[in-house]
Amino acid sequence: MNDKKIKELTDWMKKNGTDLVYITNPNTVSYFTGFASDPHERILALFFSVDKDPFLFTPALDAQAAKESSWQYDVIGYQDAQDPWKIIASEIHNRYGTPADITIEKSSLSLDHFEAFAAYFPKTSFAKNLTPVIEQMQLRKTPEEIDKLVEAGSWADVAFEIGFSAIKEGATEAEIIAEIEYQLKRKGVAKMSFDTEVLAGAKAANPHGTPGDDPVQKNHFVLFDLGVLWKDYCSDATRTVAFKEPTAFQRKIYDIVLEAQLATQKAVKPGIKASELDRIAREVIENYGYGEAFNHRLGHGIGTTIHEYPSLVAGNDLVLEEGMCFSIEPGIYLPNEVGVRIEDCVYVTKDGCQPFTKTNKELQIIE
Amino acid sequence: MNDKKIKELTDWMKKNGTDLVYITNPNTVSYFTGFASDPHERILALFFSVDKDPFLFTPALDAQAAKESSWQYDVIGYQDAQDPWKIIASEIHNRYGTPADITIEKSSLSLDHFEAFAAYFPKTSFAKNLTPVIEQMQLRKTPEEIDKLVEAGSWADVAFEIGFSAIKEGATEAEIIAEIEYQLKRKGVAKMSFDTEVLAGAKAANPHGTPGDDPVQKNHFVLFDLGVLWKDYCSDATRTVAFKEPTAFQRKIYDIVLEAQLATQKAVKPGIKASELDRIAREVIENYGYGEAFNHRLGHGIGTTIHEYPSLVAGNDLVLEEGMCFSIEPGIYLPNEVGVRIEDCVYVTKDGCQPFTKTNKELQIIE
Repeated sequence: MNDKKIKELTDWMKKNGTDLVYITNPNTVSYFTGFASDPHERILALFFSVDKDPFLFTPALDAQAAKESSWQYDVIGYQDAQDPWKIIASEIHNRYGTPADITIEKSSLSLDHFEAFAAYFPKTSFAKNLTPVIEQMQLRKTPEEIDKLVEAGSWADVAFEIGFSAIKEGATEAEIIAEIEYQLKRKGVAKMSFDTEVLAGAKAANPHGTPGDDPVQKNHFVLFDLGVLWKDYCSDATRTVAFKEPTAFQRKIYDIVLEAQLATQKAVKPGIKASELDRIAREVIENYGYGEAFNHRLGHGIGTTIHEYPSLVAGNDLVLEEGMCFSIEPGIYLPNEVGVRIEDCVYVTKDGCQPFTKTNKELQIIE
Repeated sequence: MNDKKIKELTDWMKKNGTDLVYITNPNTVSYFTGFASDPHERILALFFSVDKDPFLFTPALDAQAAKESSWQYDVIGYQDAQDPWKIIASEIHNRYGTPADITIEKSSLSLDHFEAFAAYFPKTSFAKNLTPVIEQMQLRKTPEEIDKLVEAGSWADVAFEIGFSAIKEGATEAEIIAEIEYQLKRKGVAKMSFDTEVLAGAKAANPHGTPGDDPVQKNHFVLFDLGVLWKDYCSDATRTVAFKEPTAFQRKIYDIVLEAQLATQKAVKPGIKASELDRIAREVIENYGYGEAFNHRLGHGIGTTIHEYPSLVAGNDLVLEEGMCFSIEPGIYLPNEVGVRIEDCVYVTKDGCQPFTKTNKELQIIE
């Protein structure tokens, strides 16, 4: 249970005149309560009152685990055959009366669930959105959080090492992924932070391609995008390596992306804007004439989730501060030809940044 | 692209007086378009008009793949730095004017996205929910769909075989999972349908426990809950096996769950209600005095998603029909003591049902 963050939240509630907050994201529930659970289509909900004790609402089959977690307040379980909204509404009315204002984490409550919930509170305002408040709270990571992100990052380095060793003529993308995940799981990493991508040859030109049975061949670039979940924190990194001697054109594209990645990473420091970093990377690539082929934002925040605030994108004028953590991942994708992306996630320090992943970014040629 | 289902949907629109439907679930998008993609926090949306051509809206980096899929209509891509809602609204206004009524798949549109979208349509009604319509459309599987579910089921049988072989004194849950997923990936199964569960000993008494470093020990029950994603269709099955000779009490609990599972599976046929099946399983377990320890519904639908309609739960009086597919998964969970669950997914036939998984359900003792 995160007392400090709970106090921060209730302070926000007082200041902003909201009686109750409704946390809907399982990740945020875990952040405050210490109880991590994926409820699938069942209902997991956390309610904080401005002046009374909070309560956690879980499927019956998770209630015991929630009670045994570090969460110190009430846990209300519901059976599959019960109407969860009716129970939630009755708990709220009994504990807190009729709230004039409920602030919901709107990013992860589906519209049908909202309608089912709101029907019990016809006089309540739901105008405020808690999502940006939570994003702000999670934006600057504590030293303890950064330690965990560093550990998660070093597992990504281990994953690259396993993956690079698994490259050989004819090995398929799927086989290389199987090898990476198998070795990691045997070493105690229970979960990847997202589906591991290994894309060979032209396949890598599709930024979110689907790995399959394509075998690695001579002169292929092989793109690895991977990360692990470690102590509830994520890593995410990308390396593109060559199998056997690359062509001059492949080298050229690689070097442009590397230049963009290094120039941007070097520019990170407190005071610079998110949009400026995106601009730096984009300018390098545009100057070589490949601006169109860098068809996504520079990066995204990282923490207990793989994509969180801040977004490193044109138009986001957020000023970076110490402790913010995000990816720097420029890429060039030329359909049916070549795809290169290089990505490190970093944390902002007093006067620069440090990457969570240390795997060499110079072009590696696997023989 | 699924012409037949698109026609079914536009027929529904005509009959129900809606001008436009907004599909929000990536799975449903794939069901109609043939284009499968996980947009993460980006926006993927599909719009069907009652009398004009539909369009698909995707992140720019997925647009090419969408155009190369079997989808025959327009694909509109958006860049990360653009406001997707503004583009969507402008596409809708240009193509269809101002719809009086938009039916949204409300189960997978978050409240903040709904608010951003609806702000562009102040005169439009959003009263109708498409989710139950889609659920109905997907409820009775076609023979082609059942073929794929059968294949997915047989991969679950392969997974059990690998998993049972990996059980040995001191092997941890994580190691057994690593072995199952590695072997499957090497055989060409790219993705599990959910995180594989292997729970040893008392851990299995927590119905949704988290596997970890617990080693398998003599007299442990080991619970396997697993499934694969195969040709876009899921499998899901559970077996509980004994490592070395079980105690008489373990056997007793196992036999009760097995009796409940078999009695329920035998009772499946067109005409019986979902709630009746739940009752049959529950009565067996209640008669032995363990009703409280069966703390979840009997089962859930399965198809392109792991949990879909119908829900086999008290209160759901849906009458079963040929082609419906769902799990039958009674369990008994006695905290700190023993946990047993046995699950097959089945499809309803003309006069009974057939399971997708064939792995023996008699208590298996691994020596």
